[in-house]
Amino acid sequence: MVGLHPVRELLRAGRPVRRVLVADTRDASPVLDEILALARRAGVHVDEVDRARVDERAEGLVHQGVLALAPAFAYASLDEVRRRAGDRPLLLVALDSVTDPHNLGSIARTADAVGAHGLLVPARRAASVTPTAEKAAAGALAHLPVVQVTNLVRTIRSLQGEGVWAVGLDGDAPTDIADSRLLADPVVLVVGAEGRGLSRLTAETCDELVRLPMHGAVGSLNASVAAGVALYEVLRQRS
Amino acid sequence: MVGLHPVRELLRAGRPVRRVLVADTRDASPVLDEILALARRAGVHVDEVDRARVDERAEGLVHQGVLALAPAFAYASLDEVRRRAGDRPLLLVALDSVTDPHNLGSIARTADAVGAHGLLVPARRAASVTPTAEKAAAGALAHLPVVQVTNLVRTIRSLQGEGVWAVGLDGDAPTDIADSRLLADPVVLVVGAEGRGLSRLTAETCDELVRLPMHGAVGSLNASVAAGVALYEVLRQRS
Repeated sequence: MVGLHPVRELLRAGRPVRRVLVADTRDASPVLDEILALARRAGVHVDEVDRARVDERAEGLVHQGVLALAPAFAYASLDEVRRRAGDRPLLLVALDSVTDPHNLGSIARTADAVGAHGLLVPARRAASVTPTAEKAAAGALAHLPVVQVTNLVRTIRSLQGEGVWAVGLDGDAPTDIADSRLLADPVVLVVGAEGRGLSRLTAETCDELVRLPMHGAVGSLNASVAAGVALYEVLRQRS
Repeated sequence: MVGLHPVRELLRAGRPVRRVLVADTRDASPVLDEILALARRAGVHVDEVDRARVDERAEGLVHQGVLALAPAFAYASLDEVRRRAGDRPLLLVALDSVTDPHNLGSIARTADAVGAHGLLVPARRAASVTPTAEKAAAGALAHLPVVQVTNLVRTIRSLQGEGVWAVGLDGDAPTDIADSRLLADPVVLVVGAEGRGLSRLTAETCDELVRLPMHGAVGSLNASVAAGVALYEVLRQRS
């Protein structure tokens, strides 16, 4: 985990951290002070090291002179996500063949912001939680449970069996998302890859396909912007 | 301009193109066919060249084997933007010290999608329309006028003098954007840089500051996601 905000969120969330590296060229800042205080409280050792060593460990990511050595990302179970929702109507986001870890991270950040209970990602042929995804999530992946599933369609069907609606985001859908009547109920919002959209089988499995209104010349949105607008529409309909 | 969709949008918009380069390793595709047809119609020469030459010209961007040589980006005037709005209530997006060209491009893409009339960017200490921004805009910058201004606050004040409200996006604002009563009128939505937000002077110049509701652990959104959610809220209040 690299960067001031991601490392702070990791520590704030109480996730296991083996060690924090701070570059000796790093200036003082309120966020850095908070990181040092959180690390001290959690008994995590902080090393002041050469900037070159942080560069090397950061594998090309912008690290702002701060890096946390943490165990591999811990995926969650669907049961954990259900427990998190408690009595409130479940809100999940499922990524169907999203391969760009930036999009995964950015969508996780928005999912956290709207109070979603978790993210479903396929285990194969899809982005997983890499350092790049964690960076784009700006710390949200330290809080939001991510469930890796072997077969997304099967998981969606099993959720449908428990009374969860599957609503797919599809630019060609006939229904404007504002006209959906499902979003206040327990729902899994299914987001496809930029360009290709939802796979045929995933789209057929959804209870409803919805689109965002488009009034421009180009006619498509960045995948994480589209997911963000849709998630805020869910929030609006629930409030 | 690099990549299938950006090059297609450039040609579709009738923007001047000196030459299109197609890598000899490039497979046929419907979008490529459309590019070749548009280029033929516009009298633009298409060269089939070594992939290495496209790589070199693309300067590290993902080009999908297609690149257009075009004159430098042509910024628009505020008058062009006003003409574009015509009788409809003006909708502008102003970027206050946004330095990441990805964010500029992605916000331009969403601004086009909601039918905004233009984008205002400061000429100094801010992202301008670079190839990276054009790539992230997926072609929207071929259609959406971008106005470079020497002093953003002065331009906002001059717009206010014409009856345009300045509404700033600010995570700490007391007003939820859903409760704003200004967005159906002519408006310039002012978006700040990720992390730092709006500059003090810009924030003070705005008629209203609004926030997006946040229910998560992290408490901030990616700048282009935040701008996207806000722009769709404008669209919703206007429809």
